[in-house]
Amino acid sequence: MVCGYDKVKVRSDREARRLEHVCFESGGRDARSDPNRTSRPLRAPRGRSNVSKGALRRVCVPEILISLMLAREAVDGIVRQGVVMAVKNAFYAQSGGVTAVINGSACGVLQTARQHVNEIGKVYAGRNGIIGALTEDLIDTSVEFDTAIAALKHTPGAAFGSCRYRLGSIHENRAQYERLIEVFRAHDIGFFFYNGGGDSQDTTYKINQLSAELAYPIVCVGIPKTMDNDLPITDCSPGFGSVAKYVATSLREAALDLTAMSRTSTKVFTMEVMGRHAGWTTAACALAAEHEGDAPHILLLPEVAFNEERFLAKVEDALERYDQCVIAVSEGVKGSDGAFLSASGLKDSFGHSQLGGVAPLITHLISTKLGCKCHWAVPDYLLRSARHIASETDLQQAYAVGRAAVEFAIAGRTAVMPAIRRLSDTPYRWDIIEAPLSEVANQEKLLPPDFISGDGFGITEAARRYLAPLIVGEAYPPFKNGLPDYVKLQNVAVPKRLTRQFSV
Amino acid sequence: MVCGYDKVKVRSDREARRLEHVCFESGGRDARSDPNRTSRPLRAPRGRSNVSKGALRRVCVPEILISLMLAREAVDGIVRQGVVMAVKNAFYAQSGGVTAVINGSACGVLQTARQHVNEIGKVYAGRNGIIGALTEDLIDTSVEFDTAIAALKHTPGAAFGSCRYRLGSIHENRAQYERLIEVFRAHDIGFFFYNGGGDSQDTTYKINQLSAELAYPIVCVGIPKTMDNDLPITDCSPGFGSVAKYVATSLREAALDLTAMSRTSTKVFTMEVMGRHAGWTTAACALAAEHEGDAPHILLLPEVAFNEERFLAKVEDALERYDQCVIAVSEGVKGSDGAFLSASGLKDSFGHSQLGGVAPLITHLISTKLGCKCHWAVPDYLLRSARHIASETDLQQAYAVGRAAVEFAIAGRTAVMPAIRRLSDTPYRWDIIEAPLSEVANQEKLLPPDFISGDGFGITEAARRYLAPLIVGEAYPPFKNGLPDYVKLQNVAVPKRLTRQFSV
Repeated sequence: MVCGYDKVKVRSDREARRLEHVCFESGGRDARSDPNRTSRPLRAPRGRSNVSKGALRRVCVPEILISLMLAREAVDGIVRQGVVMAVKNAFYAQSGGVTAVINGSACGVLQTARQHVNEIGKVYAGRNGIIGALTEDLIDTSVEFDTAIAALKHTPGAAFGSCRYRLGSIHENRAQYERLIEVFRAHDIGFFFYNGGGDSQDTTYKINQLSAELAYPIVCVGIPKTMDNDLPITDCSPGFGSVAKYVATSLREAALDLTAMSRTSTKVFTMEVMGRHAGWTTAACALAAEHEGDAPHILLLPEVAFNEERFLAKVEDALERYDQCVIAVSEGVKGSDGAFLSASGLKDSFGHSQLGGVAPLITHLISTKLGCKCHWAVPDYLLRSARHIASETDLQQAYAVGRAAVEFAIAGRTAVMPAIRRLSDTPYRWDIIEAPLSEVANQEKLLPPDFISGDGFGITEAARRYLAPLIVGEAYPPFKNGLPDYVKLQNVAVPKRLTRQFSV
Repeated sequence: MVCGYDKVKVRSDREARRLEHVCFESGGRDARSDPNRTSRPLRAPRGRSNVSKGALRRVCVPEILISLMLAREAVDGIVRQGVVMAVKNAFYAQSGGVTAVINGSACGVLQTARQHVNEIGKVYAGRNGIIGALTEDLIDTSVEFDTAIAALKHTPGAAFGSCRYRLGSIHENRAQYERLIEVFRAHDIGFFFYNGGGDSQDTTYKINQLSAELAYPIVCVGIPKTMDNDLPITDCSPGFGSVAKYVATSLREAALDLTAMSRTSTKVFTMEVMGRHAGWTTAACALAAEHEGDAPHILLLPEVAFNEERFLAKVEDALERYDQCVIAVSEGVKGSDGAFLSASGLKDSFGHSQLGGVAPLITHLISTKLGCKCHWAVPDYLLRSARHIASETDLQQAYAVGRAAVEFAIAGRTAVMPAIRRLSDTPYRWDIIEAPLSEVANQEKLLPPDFISGDGFGITEAARRYLAPLIVGEAYPPFKNGLPDYVKLQNVAVPKRLTRQFSV
């Protein structure tokens, strides 16, 4: 299946249909994503089989049979022997750390669902992710105006609230799963969409397993999102391109500041970026450099063990060559013992260490050992919520995976996730394929060795080729009174139908 | 004198002249700043007397006489008894911490000087501020293409390098001043423009004094620049509007991130902003809030002594009301004893403490005392170099003060600085007036008491009225391959004419 469109401007529905099988090209405009376009419901994809990397072939047969059986039951609920039955509602929720464009995926889901009124009833959003389902705290998205839904494309954060909450195994947390079924049944929900990273795909996969085990038919489709870019199978994860654009832009700007001051003042600037285990975001900082000698001069990747002596020698080398040194450091950089250089000791609800503060540590090291004046920055949330400098390519992809998720679901595909497949680097072309959740859940895709330079302090040309197209295009939000004009949805609660409370 | 233009599009030189006495209005386009406009040299302002706040009246008479005498000598060098003499060259340099739009002022200086070839010869830029003059390291700006000069308007950093270097008193550092005269004489420099904050205006003022004392005629005009917004007389300082836009935008975005996560994860987000003594930048964070309850919920201003008990009570109150708390803290916040909450102990060459790291400290306090999960950000250089989200209003003002400086100099005004005068809040209208350097140098304009809310944790409506227009308008730089396309000048050195070296 090819979900994309070329950047040709679509002038009619007929033309749109003709273009339906053309791929995305960077910088192009997604015709279907244009909220101003009035079109009849789009044709649902049928009979697709081009799963990448033979992923589907590796899925065990009973699992497929169960999935298909359940999917058919869901679809059969829609049309049975020519009689149109009440269509099932859908549940959509956002999970984990948010991105600048996760609402772009929400927009893709909601706009596409609205185009398929014969297949999907109302879309109920979970307030704060899966917690909304557990506590029967559902949001009726049907009352939102089309203009508000369209505005999600330019609004960061998570329009319905997110959460860090992992469902345990079905055996150990049966009550939770039974509760989910109870809520889904009460609200006639036949489609489950969960928008998040590895943990969220795990949740989606588990709910799919649950639907088999408890014989409640629900089509489960994960929607990829993570600024960390560490989801497997998909070529990149929506949210990452915008973070990459933000860090590269910010570092290029800060480096100009440093250059101006290094003669008499600060000589070293260190920027810390998020990315717990995978160095994608740190690597993206290297895009700031255009010519030999441009900043950043050193990357500290989580994939490369930190060696103080080699690092300080590298800093001295940069100072000697350029009279300055710009460093991008991952929050997750580790020593040779595998321990994070800086960990606050706190853990989040997933059991991950809460990190932050490596930049001051690195800075202290340099100023103590080399005696020069240093500055450091930790943008933290700023980098993953910077919708004002989002990548147009990233936004298109975020929208596309949201739309594809609905199309997959309508086609009865379950336990899958729309994934981005790269067709070419230059010009950048991509389309959407189907990835089985069994291969996505709980896996982290690290920076491959051939993306890391020989000395471990930079990236290779291969990495640059990979990263470069992901930041292309600007997708400025509208501004009002000098500030981005972000939408706030009404988020009207769906009346509860259950009397039993459920605590999380 | 009124230097501005209305936002009416200028279609001809005649129309431009007609508009010459109309004021700036926010969001308008500066016709004279359009590098594509071919116009004859603009009329130099004459016989102005509308100095604000009676500032000029307070200047002592002998000082004025000396200034006028020297200015006349400089101008006399240009035209004497109808015979056109070789025009004097100009020196321009950038000083102190840079901003997103200081190069906009450089553009104003250079484009205006190029329009006045009969009055100003070449413009030599100091490489790294006044150090370039001391070491005879001058840059010949005349070799730069018009397109490169125009591109300065969208390039952050300091195109010619900046410095932190304060000339001491003339009595104690006579050798430095004599050296300056030596370099100026060797390169036939009759105009001195220095673009910076309070320290830089002090340098400009001292060079003016020197020119009187050593009887070397040089017209000295300061050009205001500081992200801290702490220069007196001028209604605002170029550089501040863009920082204000950056911090308000970033905080609004990060707050959406926090809102998404606060149900199950982070509840407090603290962003540290620059601003050593004056709370303007911290105050600007408040612009992010549109409605009651919007972030930020607490400002920690350097003008208000930090009180741990009252602060924690305020955080608890926000958590209770909104289930989250967003804090903007100035790097310069002090305890009741007047000491900075966090100081690294290092001092820069001006003797200022090098700050940074208050946000982690505040965060530690909250997580220890209130036990909730917190995140913090320190954008540091990112905030003052973020040209990608610069304020169009700020950029217009940066350009206008650069242009006015040249116009002042041609009119023979010395020891002055172009200052921005606010004519009205709504619609925002402003013009440029002349401020005597004697009243600008070494003074810091703090947030006035009536701008700070009763409890000290916020700003008043008066502050909001003042701040709001300064961030209006977007002035996006051009992008290439997904990143801002910033210009790098050739910065060709002027051949040295002196044999003596001078060390700084």
